[in-house]
Amino acid sequence: MVSCVFPGSFDPVTKGHLDLIKRAASLFDRVTVTVMVNISKKGCIPPDQRVSMLKKICEPYPNVYVDRWEGLLADYMEQKGEKIIIRGLRSSAEFDHEFVSCSANKLLNKQAETLFLPCDPALNGISSSAVREIAAFGGDIRSFVPDAVAEEIRFCLSKNNH
Amino acid sequence: MVSCVFPGSFDPVTKGHLDLIKRAASLFDRVTVTVMVNISKKGCIPPDQRVSMLKKICEPYPNVYVDRWEGLLADYMEQKGEKIIIRGLRSSAEFDHEFVSCSANKLLNKQAETLFLPCDPALNGISSSAVREIAAFGGDIRSFVPDAVAEEIRFCLSKNNH
Amino acid sequence: MVSCVFPGSFDPVTKGHLDLIKRAASLFDRVTVTVMVNISKKGCIPPDQRVSMLKKICEPYPNVYVDRWEGLLADYMEQKGEKIIIRGLRSSAEFDHEFVSCSANKLLNKQAETLFLPCDPALNGISSSAVREIAAFGGDIRSFVPDAVAEEIRFCLSKNNH
Amino acid sequence: MVSCVFPGSFDPVTKGHLDLIKRAASLFDRVTVTVMVNISKKGCIPPDQRVSMLKKICEPYPNVYVDRWEGLLADYMEQKGEKIIIRGLRSSAEFDHEFVSCSANKLLNKQAETLFLPCDPALNGISSSAVREIAAFGGDIRSFVPDAVAEEIRFCLSKNNH
Amino acid sequence: MVSCVFPGSFDPVTKGHLDLIKRAASLFDRVTVTVMVNISKKGCIPPDQRVSMLKKICEPYPNVYVDRWEGLLADYMEQKGEKIIIRGLRSSAEFDHEFVSCSANKLLNKQAETLFLPCDPALNGISSSAVREIAAFGGDIRSFVPDAVAEEIRFCLSKNNH
Amino acid sequence: MVSCVFPGSFDPVTKGHLDLIKRAASLFDRVTVTVMVNISKKGCIPPDQRVSMLKKICEPYPNVYVDRWEGLLADYMEQKGEKIIIRGLRSSAEFDHEFVSCSANKLLNKQAETLFLPCDPALNGISSSAVREIAAFGGDIRSFVPDAVAEEIRFCLSKNNH
Repeated sequence: MVSCVFPGSFDPVTKGHLDLIKRAASLFDRVTVTVMVNISKKGCIPPDQRVSMLKKICEPYPNVYVDRWEGLLADYMEQKGEKIIIRGLRSSAEFDHEFVSCSANKLLNKQAETLFLPCDPALNGISSSAVREIAAFGGDIRSFVPDAVAEEIRFCLSKNNH
Repeated sequence: MVSCVFPGSFDPVTKGHLDLIKRAASLFDRVTVTVMVNISKKGCIPPDQRVSMLKKICEPYPNVYVDRWEGLLADYMEQKGEKIIIRGLRSSAEFDHEFVSCSANKLLNKQAETLFLPCDPALNGISSSAVREIAAFGGDIRSFVPDAVAEEIRFCLSKNNH
Repeated sequence: MVSCVFPGSFDPVTKGHLDLIKRAASLFDRVTVTVMVNISKKGCIPPDQRVSMLKKICEPYPNVYVDRWEGLLADYMEQKGEKIIIRGLRSSAEFDHEFVSCSANKLLNKQAETLFLPCDPALNGISSSAVREIAAFGGDIRSFVPDAVAEEIRFCLSKNNH
Repeated sequence: MVSCVFPGSFDPVTKGHLDLIKRAASLFDRVTVTVMVNISKKGCIPPDQRVSMLKKICEPYPNVYVDRWEGLLADYMEQKGEKIIIRGLRSSAEFDHEFVSCSANKLLNKQAETLFLPCDPALNGISSSAVREIAAFGGDIRSFVPDAVAEEIRFCLSKNNH
Repeated sequence: MVSCVFPGSFDPVTKGHLDLIKRAASLFDRVTVTVMVNISKKGCIPPDQRVSMLKKICEPYPNVYVDRWEGLLADYMEQKGEKIIIRGLRSSAEFDHEFVSCSANKLLNKQAETLFLPCDPALNGISSSAVREIAAFGGDIRSFVPDAVAEEIRFCLSKNNH
Repeated sequence: MVSCVFPGSFDPVTKGHLDLIKRAASLFDRVTVTVMVNISKKGCIPPDQRVSMLKKICEPYPNVYVDRWEGLLADYMEQKGEKIIIRGLRSSAEFDHEFVSCSANKLLNKQAETLFLPCDPALNGISSSAVREIAAFGGDIRSFVPDAVAEEIRFCLSKNNH
């Protein structure tokens, strides 16, 4: 069985994330989507809610599991016995950043390998930070986030701005 | 008539901005320079003053207009009936960043197109953040900002540091 | 009137080129699509045929004209009295390459400015060289080239391989 | 079972390739290393010999198979019923190039996904073209190619230069 | 005598910094490692301690000196009569950023030149920010920082988190 | 004494090369400009003439020497007892390419270090290949090459095209 971990902040989850999850689910026997919680950086949406939204949108994919972790990715991989980290790649600037992260992970955990899955170019403009910025100005985020959680994200982010 | 919008923070305006404005003014029938105000991020120089400084330096160019906007660029373009966004490009790292922004804009407003005007390489080291950093250390910003507003910017930023 | 020139080899024209032509036609008063002929590098498709194919696919756009030129772009711009060069941009690596070209053009012709129009990310994989490579292996190029000239291109490139 | 294909010219195979093969073999149930033969570009080392060298160095890895293909990668993937293409990534410039290739592949075969495995940075300077250049000047290629085939490659490439 | 300055935050110093210092020391007659202190951004480790740690690890290199500076690098270079700034380079994204900084420096001090020394690719994953992040999660930073100061850094950063 | 080597094809030498030579000459005790001759790739200008042109333009700089080499740079550095290779850098795409070359050099010669000197951004559009292309179309190369050898280069390249 070949399984992989798709870690991220998912603050909030986007159509871009969902596309990567779907595609990973079609390639691997098992995909774990893991919300990485950084205690020192308070996000926009509470981690519990990020987990529950991911669970809702991943329901149609029986080999996708949702998890959360407060700590280093390298430790998570080791503790769970996972070897493959999946990261989306949109641009060469992201590659430079991710390459450094994955080299750092290797120094902490020699077993874990990062595999990069190129983002669907048609979803190129979609990112969590774009969603947050659009929401901050009261814009329409529906083209950016999965339908099943669009209303919940809109509500969450609007509360945030007040 | 072909008009374009040159949006930015202009916090503060630099010689690099002025060069792009001049060149756009020589290519298009009408150029609107728009100060994008982000209410959640307090800038260094108050928006009103950024607008007035832009008006001062754009005076010699009869087809250049100065405006301000609190909101999304995509909404601004739609409301003003403008189709061309002009952005300066200095490096490939900036391109990766701008490409994502312009894809996001397209999801919000299908009519608006971004055209990138490469910066004059001789002005490569000039940016608003460089000006703010140099001013923070009491350095001489005169090579970085338009002559007509250099003293006003110096005064503004020095107040800021106290 | 604001006009622009969209220069290229168009060897062969692709759906990516057509998308850029259409978008430029909607922004500018007049667009000239110019086949740049390099006498020293024999292309795959004869220049005359590249011109006639472009004419066929540009027919629906009344403000688009097709031209050809053997020589430097900088000289063409000067001779035609044109000031705006439109180039598509797909990636940051392309930007680095194009930035150097456009700086070289400026040394030869101070009036000419290059404006970069980002490619539609969904057409990211489409390029003339991809078309030539796929045709060389007898693959199906129909997703890569405009419908109106697909058969003509297929015929041209297959002749080329024999 | 999750299998993948690692395509390439392998002209000649390097320590960088071997590192990627080993790492892929530890992650996937089955890895097929496929020599892509381009009839129009005569390589340095005959394809048969590239295959036999790969077989020799892959012998220790029971889940690694060696194959060859004259044609498009997209067709190979479809014909073999494979879904995962593995490509090594060394730099952001390579990413920009590979991203375009993988978008082109998707237009030809919607099922095939490219996963990028970052190269071991310590092997950063190693490439087939570096090996060919060093050999052309009579330099020592032993740090660049797998021990088991170093002498055979040296002999091949030296013949080539005479 | 050819001397150079290696400026940085060193918050904290890493194995990557030490590698660059060693290599610069073997190339130049004299190397000054200068802790740049930014009064407005409070770092993690107090500047005095950064200086003392650098002194400890640079002790084996008789032509390496440690200094500190609160102000602009361009002014430092002028006041010390130094002409060569050494900066490490890890990736092309860093190059784009550094190129802009070095152009800005040139506008302030025409004499000072930046020379980029490529980082050892094997140390690619090592950065001060990675060290701070790993320490924040209680991870093991020993592969990332020089042995002689590992314990001191660990202690410093753990205090920081409480 | 700190000396360095500035290797290149110089086919032909440009104003960009001359700028780098001048700046290196002001930083180092001694600069050797070395024409790297690749026997398998016939250049445009004969190596002897490239050397004589470099000698002419380097005459004003008493600490600059001109040399030629047929072989690997790594071997040259070792044989001459030189440790510093100077390379100009214009863009991040060039960095990615140069980084790989310098890693390859290190595998062949552990002593040799590459230092990158950023090109003057104002000379960004100037390259040997641009000069060759402009000359091929009968354009004016005088803004691109040093005055002292402009006529000689023009003559050389025009002969080449006939």
